[in-house]
Amino acid sequence: MSEVTLLSLLEAGEGQYISGEMISKQLNVSRTAVWKQVRKLEAEGYQIEAVSRLGYRLMGKPSRLSLHELLPKLNTKKFGRNLRLIDVTPSTQDEVKKLAEQGSPEGTLVIAEQQTSGRGRMGRAWVSPAGKGIWMSLLLRPPVPVHQTPQLTLLAAVALSRAISKLTSLDIGIKWPNDLLVDGRKISGILLETAAEDERLKYIVVGMGISVNLDKADFKEELHSKAISLKMLTGQTISRTELIVSIMENFEQLYELYLEQGFAPIRALWEAHSITLNQHTTLYTPQGLISGIPRSLDNLGGLSIELEDGSFRTIYSGEIGMSPLQ
Amino acid sequence: MSEVTLLSLLEAGEGQYISGEMISKQLNVSRTAVWKQVRKLEAEGYQIEAVSRLGYRLMGKPSRLSLHELLPKLNTKKFGRNLRLIDVTPSTQDEVKKLAEQGSPEGTLVIAEQQTSGRGRMGRAWVSPAGKGIWMSLLLRPPVPVHQTPQLTLLAAVALSRAISKLTSLDIGIKWPNDLLVDGRKISGILLETAAEDERLKYIVVGMGISVNLDKADFKEELHSKAISLKMLTGQTISRTELIVSIMENFEQLYELYLEQGFAPIRALWEAHSITLNQHTTLYTPQGLISGIPRSLDNLGGLSIELEDGSFRTIYSGEIGMSPLQ
Repeated sequence: MSEVTLLSLLEAGEGQYISGEMISKQLNVSRTAVWKQVRKLEAEGYQIEAVSRLGYRLMGKPSRLSLHELLPKLNTKKFGRNLRLIDVTPSTQDEVKKLAEQGSPEGTLVIAEQQTSGRGRMGRAWVSPAGKGIWMSLLLRPPVPVHQTPQLTLLAAVALSRAISKLTSLDIGIKWPNDLLVDGRKISGILLETAAEDERLKYIVVGMGISVNLDKADFKEELHSKAISLKMLTGQTISRTELIVSIMENFEQLYELYLEQGFAPIRALWEAHSITLNQHTTLYTPQGLISGIPRSLDNLGGLSIELEDGSFRTIYSGEIGMSPLQ
Repeated sequence: MSEVTLLSLLEAGEGQYISGEMISKQLNVSRTAVWKQVRKLEAEGYQIEAVSRLGYRLMGKPSRLSLHELLPKLNTKKFGRNLRLIDVTPSTQDEVKKLAEQGSPEGTLVIAEQQTSGRGRMGRAWVSPAGKGIWMSLLLRPPVPVHQTPQLTLLAAVALSRAISKLTSLDIGIKWPNDLLVDGRKISGILLETAAEDERLKYIVVGMGISVNLDKADFKEELHSKAISLKMLTGQTISRTELIVSIMENFEQLYELYLEQGFAPIRALWEAHSITLNQHTTLYTPQGLISGIPRSLDNLGGLSIELEDGSFRTIYSGEIGMSPLQ
């Protein structure tokens, strides 16, 4: 006989309430311990309803990604073909960096159900609860010199934005260089980590975090005005499998276009999706605060900004609208 | 009483010959084993003369670098101030990368007496025998965007070339991007490894290998026409301490100039030291073979090449004169 656990009891209940007292007896633990186990299952993505005097009832299980479901749908040459799913990891970035150093091929993809130390830009923490989002990292080995990496940062933003738009019909704006926003609130963060030797790129690890099916309660209070999920925006649970497939396909397509035709077509797409251009903007840069109106991207992916005196200045590194220390 | 070793016997001899037979008896090993131990000591930098019928004699000990000697001579603000000397390591690059990830400050320097897996460009092995060269890595955290890293590759070449010239009066030529040559033979290799997040540089580890006091026998046969040491060129043993100090000072000075005034003065210095410009050249690039006459550096550090039809093409990544597979 398999071990009796809270989950096995709830599953045996088949959607009916099971009293806390009964669970407590069966597991031989206190009522408080039962409550703690319930919270733990919820953190893993189980939906459990608690009603006083009735008890607990299982409403939904976490949707797990599976290779069986993902691989047959993936219509790509390289992207996602070498695929690893993991339950919990500090950060998918570190997983792929390790694989990159060991010689894994371009297109290698690691997806985690949950990240415990997800990172955003500037070392900011990135909320990555279990089963509700897409937390993944993709390995690229583009045969381009290191000074072109900022172009790939912008390419990644266009690829994700197009993939999400197609699946959800949401109107997604790109904030320079690569934040994806809907109605001013962030739905996705992208972080490219690059390793280079002299002028040669060794590899790029593209970290992607997408708030797919997170509920309001999954975001910290202070993020409520700044971040939102696709589910909150559309009122529907989005298939993570479909979205991952769509991202891989769109990303590979744009990447091939870039290797064939260079940055020009990517730049045009980025500019079309941008919410940064032609808006008065304040940038926090390593050289200090800069205010002006971004007008276009330059050849390298820098932001060409019209200053108040009418002159132009190109910014390659900086944060829009908030201090990097925030 | 301390253990009797080959070294203690040779040292007790105070420059006099000690017969192989006596050593063999004292150590209770075969004559062949004695010979193997002699070779091992030589590999560590000991100079041992072997004369048949007379025996072995200690002619010189490896000159060890010491913090006591180095630090008081170092007239820098940051470069080399956080200094670590180690005896043997696979690669000083990996040591400094670890320190960089742990937050070590700019200017951190790791010097090894010996590297067991020294790396050059394109993953080539780099000969780094004990005590005879300078094998070191310097940590930089320049507040510049990632597309400017090739400029720092060129800056490093200028810094080393100036430091070595000052100390040895040798006429050093820079082969694009950063090999240092005297009379067509390589005396130093530089390898910059860069880590970036999006458009922001996280850090650069500048690996420097300088063949200071290597003898001809230290180079493999196939390198004799390609590589040479400062000692072989000047006929003199060069103080590694003086050279390290000179490199740190020259490097910091140029680096400060670069941060203040940008790439223009560095470019001018590089062009003045270059042996690549205005010579017919074949480059192996990721896009294939390119032949022409390099005429200048562009703003980013790329090589502007005049092709046979008179048109110009700028190359950012490639190897001059030999296949990257060699």
